[in-house]
Amino acid sequence: MKPAVKVAVTGAAGNIAYSLIFQIASGNMLGKDQPVILQLIEIPPAMGVLQGVLMELDDCAFPLLESVMATDDIHKGFEDIDYALLVGARPRSKGMERSDLLLSNAEIFSAQGKAINAVAKPSVHVLVIGNPANTNALIAMHNAPDISCKQFTAMMRLDHQRTLAQLEIKTGVHHTKITKVAVWGNHSATQYPDINHALLDGKAALDCVEQAWVENALIPTVQNRGAAIIEARGASSAASAALSGVYHMNDWILGSHHNDWISMAVCTSGQYDIEQDLIFSFPVTCDHEDYKIVEGIEMNDFSLARLKITEQELIQERDAVRHLL
Amino acid sequence: MKPAVKVAVTGAAGNIAYSLIFQIASGNMLGKDQPVILQLIEIPPAMGVLQGVLMELDDCAFPLLESVMATDDIHKGFEDIDYALLVGARPRSKGMERSDLLLSNAEIFSAQGKAINAVAKPSVHVLVIGNPANTNALIAMHNAPDISCKQFTAMMRLDHQRTLAQLEIKTGVHHTKITKVAVWGNHSATQYPDINHALLDGKAALDCVEQAWVENALIPTVQNRGAAIIEARGASSAASAALSGVYHMNDWILGSHHNDWISMAVCTSGQYDIEQDLIFSFPVTCDHEDYKIVEGIEMNDFSLARLKITEQELIQERDAVRHLL
Repeated sequence: MKPAVKVAVTGAAGNIAYSLIFQIASGNMLGKDQPVILQLIEIPPAMGVLQGVLMELDDCAFPLLESVMATDDIHKGFEDIDYALLVGARPRSKGMERSDLLLSNAEIFSAQGKAINAVAKPSVHVLVIGNPANTNALIAMHNAPDISCKQFTAMMRLDHQRTLAQLEIKTGVHHTKITKVAVWGNHSATQYPDINHALLDGKAALDCVEQAWVENALIPTVQNRGAAIIEARGASSAASAALSGVYHMNDWILGSHHNDWISMAVCTSGQYDIEQDLIFSFPVTCDHEDYKIVEGIEMNDFSLARLKITEQELIQERDAVRHLL
Repeated sequence: MKPAVKVAVTGAAGNIAYSLIFQIASGNMLGKDQPVILQLIEIPPAMGVLQGVLMELDDCAFPLLESVMATDDIHKGFEDIDYALLVGARPRSKGMERSDLLLSNAEIFSAQGKAINAVAKPSVHVLVIGNPANTNALIAMHNAPDISCKQFTAMMRLDHQRTLAQLEIKTGVHHTKITKVAVWGNHSATQYPDINHALLDGKAALDCVEQAWVENALIPTVQNRGAAIIEARGASSAASAALSGVYHMNDWILGSHHNDWISMAVCTSGQYDIEQDLIFSFPVTCDHEDYKIVEGIEMNDFSLARLKITEQELIQERDAVRHLL
């Protein structure tokens, strides 16, 4: 058996974490041969609920779970970690402006970035799930100067999966036979789900669906899927968000499928003419705990215009929190 | 790839199912090489929430999930199924007597037994999780006369896991090194967690802990663990109950560990002098989709007295619903 790795999860008493933690402990994220130590982090008022989660983790007696700890001290929680899943974020409360939301989260992720820089393993891989995820990841990354930018990512996998699901529903082709879907940009309503290069059972997706369906159904449905699930469930996506985090980390660490892409929000350095130093989602491939942005994809005018919209939003978000970068 | 199997889940919009369904679709229950078709069952008022769960299942794009359907018609939901996880049950409402609770659930499980008998595969394997689980399973079994009694079980695995967890907490021996724990009887406060034959890293458990701890701490803690988790979390055990269902089915269908026992509530036929035709938990071993009650375990007077208490409760429960058997 391999030596255990340490995985930190913030917002550990919340709904996404309640799905996520048990998947990690099951071995679905890092493999059935990888023991894990969980370091669960919450804010003080949630420590009581987290205690209940610890009891349930004990009761599962997961073979791969070597130990668990819970803390409200991020310096303890991030100590010596190999992986961090930053799930906790301040939700938008009544009367709060978007700029207030950005700022209050920026402070949280600035502190977390500093703590990760100070106490995590230098090889730590970080996935930000808490919203606004892209800009939160940017802030954490900037506050962890000793850790490579390539080790900070934000989650776009849920949007990627949602695009696959809509294509399957529309065409009847099983999702396992759909490849090369991409979601670009920000994890927000400006994101751009792109099927221009997607293959359905080897056949070009654009030969199977109308462009009007892409523009008027697929894109808005994926962009607004979160709200539709809240409407149906009376609660926001938790299990599917958690599973998307599991997929993101699994592919990043253990490698993604050959001849396919996944979508990850990663630090820009000039690809596709996007402003540098944003956390922007691209199609990527992964191998050996590393991602590679798929370059050289031909982009039509429609796609380029969509990219600009979501880029502009990310630039505005960055400018609003620039004092913390 | 094997052909897909059909798995029905009742109470599919509830909290336990919300953890369970995504574990099944991940392949944790039946193996990473076993495609599944999910047949999700709810009562009409919960079909809207269930629609949200379906959306999230779509968005997970599970490689092993061949298809999903949702219905409020048990004859459609149980049609042609290989496995049934009966999670949904009427909870105790304010002012309801225990006998009313038994009766209202008895009607649900009587109807479900008849439907399973009529439309499921004859080889169907049934796990009852909804409480009172043992007696609910007894009723379902009696109403499915064409299906072998051995194919109906009720879940005691959560109690079994809770016993393992308490032993680990007390002794520091990792749960993967603890074997031959048993929980006997009813999934209720009369259950008997038994470590008389348990081994901690090969050493007799009774040489590692005091009998007073077993009687005054272990047994009441396991019996009342559910309430303690509600107290901490503000919600009942969902993830750990779901995982216990996954473990139960996984061991039952794919085989349990050599040299170890698990606890399953199964139909009695004279073992350990327990009244015949109850659904009573015993230590069992599993192989080839079948369980075998571990016989010949030496029982001391303390154990025999505990068995009688939980047996009496099950006899009373059976007598209260006898008209539906």
